[in-house]
Amino acid sequence: MAIVLGPNQFGKAEVRLVHVDRSTPVHRITDLNISSALRGDFADAHLTGDNAHILTTDAQKNTAYAFAREGVGEIEEFALRLGRHFTGSFDWVTGAQVEIEQYGWDRIQVDGAGHDHAFSRAGSERRTTVVTVDGDDAHVVSGLAGLVVLKSTGSEFWGFAQDRYTTLAETDDRILATEVTARWRLVGVEHDYGKLFTSIRTILLETFASVHSLALQQTLYKMGEDVLTACPEVAEIRMSMPNKHHFLVDLAPYGLDNPNMVFYAADRPYGKIEGTVLRDDAPDAGPAWQTIPGFC
Amino acid sequence: MAIVLGPNQFGKAEVRLVHVDRSTPVHRITDLNISSALRGDFADAHLTGDNAHILTTDAQKNTAYAFAREGVGEIEEFALRLGRHFTGSFDWVTGAQVEIEQYGWDRIQVDGAGHDHAFSRAGSERRTTVVTVDGDDAHVVSGLAGLVVLKSTGSEFWGFAQDRYTTLAETDDRILATEVTARWRLVGVEHDYGKLFTSIRTILLETFASVHSLALQQTLYKMGEDVLTACPEVAEIRMSMPNKHHFLVDLAPYGLDNPNMVFYAADRPYGKIEGTVLRDDAPDAGPAWQTIPGFC
Amino acid sequence: MAIVLGPNQFGKAEVRLVHVDRSTPVHRITDLNISSALRGDFADAHLTGDNAHILTTDAQKNTAYAFAREGVGEIEEFALRLGRHFTGSFDWVTGAQVEIEQYGWDRIQVDGAGHDHAFSRAGSERRTTVVTVDGDDAHVVSGLAGLVVLKSTGSEFWGFAQDRYTTLAETDDRILATEVTARWRLVGVEHDYGKLFTSIRTILLETFASVHSLALQQTLYKMGEDVLTACPEVAEIRMSMPNKHHFLVDLAPYGLDNPNMVFYAADRPYGKIEGTVLRDDAPDAGPAWQTIPGFC
Amino acid sequence: MAIVLGPNQFGKAEVRLVHVDRSTPVHRITDLNISSALRGDFADAHLTGDNAHILTTDAQKNTAYAFAREGVGEIEEFALRLGRHFTGSFDWVTGAQVEIEQYGWDRIQVDGAGHDHAFSRAGSERRTTVVTVDGDDAHVVSGLAGLVVLKSTGSEFWGFAQDRYTTLAETDDRILATEVTARWRLVGVEHDYGKLFTSIRTILLETFASVHSLALQQTLYKMGEDVLTACPEVAEIRMSMPNKHHFLVDLAPYGLDNPNMVFYAADRPYGKIEGTVLRDDAPDAGPAWQTIPGFC
Repeated sequence: MAIVLGPNQFGKAEVRLVHVDRSTPVHRITDLNISSALRGDFADAHLTGDNAHILTTDAQKNTAYAFAREGVGEIEEFALRLGRHFTGSFDWVTGAQVEIEQYGWDRIQVDGAGHDHAFSRAGSERRTTVVTVDGDDAHVVSGLAGLVVLKSTGSEFWGFAQDRYTTLAETDDRILATEVTARWRLVGVEHDYGKLFTSIRTILLETFASVHSLALQQTLYKMGEDVLTACPEVAEIRMSMPNKHHFLVDLAPYGLDNPNMVFYAADRPYGKIEGTVLRDDAPDAGPAWQTIPGFC
Repeated sequence: MAIVLGPNQFGKAEVRLVHVDRSTPVHRITDLNISSALRGDFADAHLTGDNAHILTTDAQKNTAYAFAREGVGEIEEFALRLGRHFTGSFDWVTGAQVEIEQYGWDRIQVDGAGHDHAFSRAGSERRTTVVTVDGDDAHVVSGLAGLVVLKSTGSEFWGFAQDRYTTLAETDDRILATEVTARWRLVGVEHDYGKLFTSIRTILLETFASVHSLALQQTLYKMGEDVLTACPEVAEIRMSMPNKHHFLVDLAPYGLDNPNMVFYAADRPYGKIEGTVLRDDAPDAGPAWQTIPGFC
Repeated sequence: MAIVLGPNQFGKAEVRLVHVDRSTPVHRITDLNISSALRGDFADAHLTGDNAHILTTDAQKNTAYAFAREGVGEIEEFALRLGRHFTGSFDWVTGAQVEIEQYGWDRIQVDGAGHDHAFSRAGSERRTTVVTVDGDDAHVVSGLAGLVVLKSTGSEFWGFAQDRYTTLAETDDRILATEVTARWRLVGVEHDYGKLFTSIRTILLETFASVHSLALQQTLYKMGEDVLTACPEVAEIRMSMPNKHHFLVDLAPYGLDNPNMVFYAADRPYGKIEGTVLRDDAPDAGPAWQTIPGFC
Repeated sequence: MAIVLGPNQFGKAEVRLVHVDRSTPVHRITDLNISSALRGDFADAHLTGDNAHILTTDAQKNTAYAFAREGVGEIEEFALRLGRHFTGSFDWVTGAQVEIEQYGWDRIQVDGAGHDHAFSRAGSERRTTVVTVDGDDAHVVSGLAGLVVLKSTGSEFWGFAQDRYTTLAETDDRILATEVTARWRLVGVEHDYGKLFTSIRTILLETFASVHSLALQQTLYKMGEDVLTACPEVAEIRMSMPNKHHFLVDLAPYGLDNPNMVFYAADRPYGKIEGTVLRDDAPDAGPAWQTIPGFC
């Protein structure tokens, strides 16, 4: 028996980068949170503290800033550029994972028109990507996070399994609320990423709104199915849709009814609903999902 | 010398209440975070543990839910209703402060039209109010929080005082970014609160965008001045506008220039800029600002 | 009527500073979060964007780091040094408020002895101070925050007021849990601050543990009273002690009793209990409490 | 080609449970955050909204509270009990993952002795376990999170790779600080879990303190190696040790030197260092690590 080094990686997390495109007086801003990690032969650093193979996390950060000088473009493309640069830099760097979150900004409206260079933050939703470069291969998993949605009706929940600990009442009308985290794995790396993001986000929202829900799982699956049906470039989509409980408040002690009008929005605990929808002929995922947090 | 009880209050904080107006198939939702606190003669509870004067925090929470059964309306009105109820309940409750945050929701667009009962959360910005009922008087301080704005140009900073520790370079073009917290004190309690909120928010945004800034203080003051000029019902406005620093990244080590294009968005430390703009004939504030956090 | 500038201040918030005392091989570390704010005549910056009176927030930050070169000492003394420096720098700076939070670190034990230069973070509790320099006067408010305590018995709650919305059951045995934020205002500025902090913290803990509680208000008051009795240098103490509810879980549906054994720890809402204990001959507070968040 | 349902799970997350052992007047409290997830045949819920196979997340929560009535014991044992109950309840539930975080509490000292029933929260560190029941098999991954440690000397970093973007200066004396998240996979399920936790935590701390560090990777590896050497029941350990940067402040502009005394503690970005140490004859991990967030 011997003790050995197993999988490992290192990088710089949460590099906050804002790029201003000033090519015209109508500025465009790109606001990113970038994390990179390198994989390869880093055994010496672990075993003896010899750092000859270590491309410092500081240099990884510097690279992100330097590359942004030439513009960012779609986050998937920027991540691919960075990832391939890292794997192309030294023989011993065989893989790289670059994760980018993008924050949205809207133009401030002044006299009914978008201002040239003044913006307001669009909310807590983020567009995301995780690009994994593995030797000559590259995998792109794009997505969104922090999309909080709610239906005030059109959601039922009944007919569930019963055991000794089941006391939940069945309902044919409840609030359904969730914070969608979705990640979709793409086939290939050449896409119109911005357009694809907009399309998928629209489908997720429209399907959430339109499905008469009998289970959060059903809503989740249909959202995924509709994305896969519409987007042939998507091999697989994984979603985490926690059930953000809204409990009907019992007003009877005060002599009042409560016909689905007054709710308590609870923080914890919450339901944890996670699922994958994929094509049965999807190409192998390889390391595309490696280290992506919290997905089944 | 004696040791005595000084100012004190108690209440229920962060009651999360969602109201669904189902009066038509086009639902409307109101999503609130409510905190109440009572003031009065609670000496016995402190000195002997006699709770006869304590209207439990649980009952305060219940009251909020029960009152919502009849609808919420504008948050200022709901807070006034609650506050007056509390002070009217028992002789020894002489004051009440009710603070409400409201979260925005947008209708999900399906086929170009807003859905009847499906919504997405509008972001992290909140509309706020702090209503203080003090005997027969009532004070309303309304506001907003979490409004993050940024100008990519149109901001200078130079000509500042110099001392031994001043090393900051002057600049005639920087990113100006802040998260606006604003609170405006109103004269009287009869207003079209919803319309007023929309007007003031629009002014704050438009003025932020339009002012060519020589100092964040100047921007802050002008924002306040424009609100007071347009809104005679506003006696005073207090703003906290932290300077969210965006530092130009030095790309020279990599042989690159950086003509105000690539920035590092820093978390901490941040500038803390707080100021008040008021009418010189504003009525006395009384306890309107009491316990409101973090304002000068 | 005219629109005028009211109270205002500016400074640098959350300067994270770690000082290592290397005067002996047994290092000592001081880990601080420092915020400063200046008060005075800054009208021109607001009205015209003329920054001649602005000691930049960057310089304020630099000053904190530079002053730490000579050592930090007790946080109250460091804050006084900084505050007096700022007010002494320019005629138009008439006041300064310096707030410091200190994070605790314990020595890592190796073979039963504290290590010379390896430490582990002691928890989320912080020692705090807010020093306000106002012309030639200085006010020191010291305190602690984030001290989470719990009693598993020895707490009752009954005999409270009843109204239509009161449904809470009386209890003679409940869990009492809170997160103590305490701030004590000192008479004068010459104290053995470290020793005083340790004494007061001990009293707060011991009294919380020892009082048989009939109300959280009673516990709060007794904690304050005991501090004032023991510490003549304390003029006043303000405490915020939110009631962190632990609800007994109803296990009857599963055929089980629950004799105060299994509890649900709730996040929101929570009780908000705030109170002041002071000497009736305490010197006037002046601006000592100005802008300190969330206290009655 | 068909669109199909892939891996999925559902459960209740963050059930906050506090158990009070009142078997003697010297109470003992166990403070937990429990998340469970079920795996199995839930296709109908996804495809048609038929919930017959759904053991509600509410029932999962109830089960945790009901089981705690008989006592909790070590978190690994409680998680095993819950996980096996879930998989034993219905044929179609073939797997379960139960994750538990435990918060520490210390007895408040009164007159030099630990109080019987008054406690203070021990900090932000948590003891953790993730138990995966997969048919008749069970896997236990225990760990800790939130252990923040710092060395004020005894850490070097030099000899690293150089590229165009490498500008970091080499150093033979820096602050090394990190927040340790460690998870260790155990062989078998019969262990003295409490004792094992204490031993491993001690080793992690002592090794962090004692290793003269040439790289954070070296420290990480040695910490893992020492655990595996001392604990034959540990098959594998994975650690995430972000480099929490402490930058030496340049005081030269103010005419001061800075011999490793005054540091700026940065928030973001931070280094991300993750690695695995394992036995080369470790049994296969099976699904033990499935869905555990953020590890290589």
